[in-house]
Amino acid sequence: MQNIDKKYTVITGASSGIGYATAIAFAKRNKNLIVIARREEQLALLKQKIADINPQLEVVIKVCDLSKSTNVHALFNQLDNYFIETWINNAGFGNYGSVGDQDLDKIETMLHLNIEALTIFSTLYTRKYQNQSGTQIINISSRGGYTIVPNAVTYCATKFYVNAFTEGLAHELKQIKAKLTAKVLAPAATQTEFGQKANNVTEYDYDKSFAKYHTADQMAEFLLALYDSDKTIGEINTKDFSFSLKDSIFPYSGDPKQNQKS
Amino acid sequence: MQNIDKKYTVITGASSGIGYATAIAFAKRNKNLIVIARREEQLALLKQKIADINPQLEVVIKVCDLSKSTNVHALFNQLDNYFIETWINNAGFGNYGSVGDQDLDKIETMLHLNIEALTIFSTLYTRKYQNQSGTQIINISSRGGYTIVPNAVTYCATKFYVNAFTEGLAHELKQIKAKLTAKVLAPAATQTEFGQKANNVTEYDYDKSFAKYHTADQMAEFLLALYDSDKTIGEINTKDFSFSLKDSIFPYSGDPKQNQKS
Repeated sequence: MQNIDKKYTVITGASSGIGYATAIAFAKRNKNLIVIARREEQLALLKQKIADINPQLEVVIKVCDLSKSTNVHALFNQLDNYFIETWINNAGFGNYGSVGDQDLDKIETMLHLNIEALTIFSTLYTRKYQNQSGTQIINISSRGGYTIVPNAVTYCATKFYVNAFTEGLAHELKQIKAKLTAKVLAPAATQTEFGQKANNVTEYDYDKSFAKYHTADQMAEFLLALYDSDKTIGEINTKDFSFSLKDSIFPYSGDPKQNQKS
Repeated sequence: MQNIDKKYTVITGASSGIGYATAIAFAKRNKNLIVIARREEQLALLKQKIADINPQLEVVIKVCDLSKSTNVHALFNQLDNYFIETWINNAGFGNYGSVGDQDLDKIETMLHLNIEALTIFSTLYTRKYQNQSGTQIINISSRGGYTIVPNAVTYCATKFYVNAFTEGLAHELKQIKAKLTAKVLAPAATQTEFGQKANNVTEYDYDKSFAKYHTADQMAEFLLALYDSDKTIGEINTKDFSFSLKDSIFPYSGDPKQNQKS
């Protein structure tokens, strides 16, 4: 690990939406960034925008399709010489439609991105950084990972995975008194490219589709509140769209020896 | 679809454990079987055992590694000429260990088997059979998919996926008045090869490791109780190891138009 004085925040899926807004928000906190997405042009625009905010910051662009696990491993290895203070797994997408009608090519890509890439990065980051002070891993999930939403069953299931995985990791890190903390952000409807991608359309009007929603900039502010807190979960209340911080939501059997003796 | 009079029950992971015991239990109900696993020898032994129970039954053996999604699609296509009355996704395995220490080759295979293969089969089966009377899809999951268990975080997360996916599918099928029903079995500790595989050992003593556990034969009986019921979930209470049937456990936002207007 080189140059420990210079620290970086990694954001996957930084080309748009919550990832893009989060990159801006962390730049305003004077954090050097490593931004990851498939679309190089969008990342170059982000880098330009950050240069306008603070020309001293370093912004490293990594163009990568994270739906292929070999790419995920290779990218983590490429970042070996950077000291990564915060790792934000934001890349992911949704799908609206019934299980029987869903396009399995899209669904398999969703599983690889929402679940597999997030698990590989979380594991490798935890292995390397769990004893480094001030480090955080933040997984961007969904309220749909605590409540099943009709017409989005498979997407919600991926987010149940992310919420259980991240809450479990947070418990585990506390139990072993690791210096790394793990957190999960659970947005409700947020105005991003999510609606287009989930509905397979090129235009999507959040005002027409949702009674209430947040903007990506609002969500990035909530993410910063989670980042600044010592809580594990930052979640949106789907009734009033208020934000709150929590220690845990899913049941946890706590004692590692509960039933298993060995 | 040919020969609709002759019906089959598909069981994945039928070479041992709950899958093997379930094959025997369905044979005793005089069900023709299609048994799937990697280990042909075990399936041949199972077929022999079923011939001793009822020589009239047909037992089709399919040797397949379901951790590769192309195999999963190909196998489903191979079964196109069979009328499949019940599809039981039982194949899967666990892993004990911390997230930071976990072997990612094993974890990626677990994600492919526990999540991806189950999702592909569930989707294809739902698409083809949702309007066929008397059909059922039963996913074998875990109590660890409702309560996070220390030292088994990633495994539990895969089972949170399975439980949310299957509960969601069950709601969806009811909503569209489909003839197919979807159900999930959530065992606690069950004496199978699970312990060996999850601990990466060749011998595993359930008496030494667990205060309480079920046998695979007991679990197959619970599965039959779930099969015979109109409930969605068959779950083991982890305190007293009793079995109960439930309509749902995870929250469900019910109305498809709740917040999303379109």
